[in-house]
Amino acid sequence: MSKNLSVSVLMDFYGGLLTDKQRKAMELYYNQDFSLAEIAEHMDISRQGVRDFVKRGEKQLLEFEQSLGLLKRFSKISAELEELSEGFSQLKEMNLPKPALEKVWEMSEKIFKIENDL
Amino acid sequence: MSKNLSVSVLMDFYGGLLTDKQRKAMELYYNQDFSLAEIAEHMDISRQGVRDFVKRGEKQLLEFEQSLGLLKRFSKISAELEELSEGFSQLKEMNLPKPALEKVWEMSEKIFKIENDL
Repeated sequence: MSKNLSVSVLMDFYGGLLTDKQRKAMELYYNQDFSLAEIAEHMDISRQGVRDFVKRGEKQLLEFEQSLGLLKRFSKISAELEELSEGFSQLKEMNLPKPALEKVWEMSEKIFKIENDL
Repeated sequence: MSKNLSVSVLMDFYGGLLTDKQRKAMELYYNQDFSLAEIAEHMDISRQGVRDFVKRGEKQLLEFEQSLGLLKRFSKISAELEELSEGFSQLKEMNLPKPALEKVWEMSEKIFKIENDL
C-alpha cells in the first residue's frame, strides 16, 4: 500500500491496537508526512527500524480491517448518509410551507453533524 | 459484567479479534444462552476452561473498546440518527405538497435502513 489516505483512515479506526512506538512512527509518517530518516532521528532508532514499524503496522491495520470490517461498515453508512443529504438538498428546492422548510433546514444541519462525527 | 446485551454488542464489533475457541465459547454463552456445563460438553473442555474463555474474552472485549471506542462512536451516531428519524415523523405530519411528502417518505425509509445497517 502506498503512502495514502487509506492508512490514515485505518489508523483512525484501529490505531489504538498498535504499540505506542508503532503508532508514533506511523502517525509521523502518514499524518505528518515525515520521511523515514526524519522519524529515525526524531525517535532515535535506525531508519530500518522505522521502516519495520511502518510496514508491520500497515499489515496489522489491514488484518484488523479484514477481521472486523468496521471501516467498511462505516463507509457504507457514510455513502447512505450522503444520499440522504442529497435528499435534503432536493427538499429545500421544493415549494414548502415555512415551518416545514425550517424543519428541513434544522434536520439538514443535523445530518451534516452526523456525517462529521462518523 | 453480567450476562447481558452489552457483551453481545461488543462481540459484534470486536469478536473478530478473539481466538476461534474463545469466540465460539462466548457465542454459545452470550448469544445462544448455553450454560457453562453445556458448552464444556459441546466443546469437550472443562467447565473451568469455558469459564476462563468467557471471563478472559469479556475482559479483552472491554479493553478493545477502551482502546478504540468504536462502539461509543457508533452509539453516538445511532442516537443522532434517532433524532433525525423523529424529525421525519414531524415532517410527515406537516401540511406538505404531495411531491415533498413523497420525498420525505422515501428519505424516511432510507434512514430506517441506515439505522438497521449501523
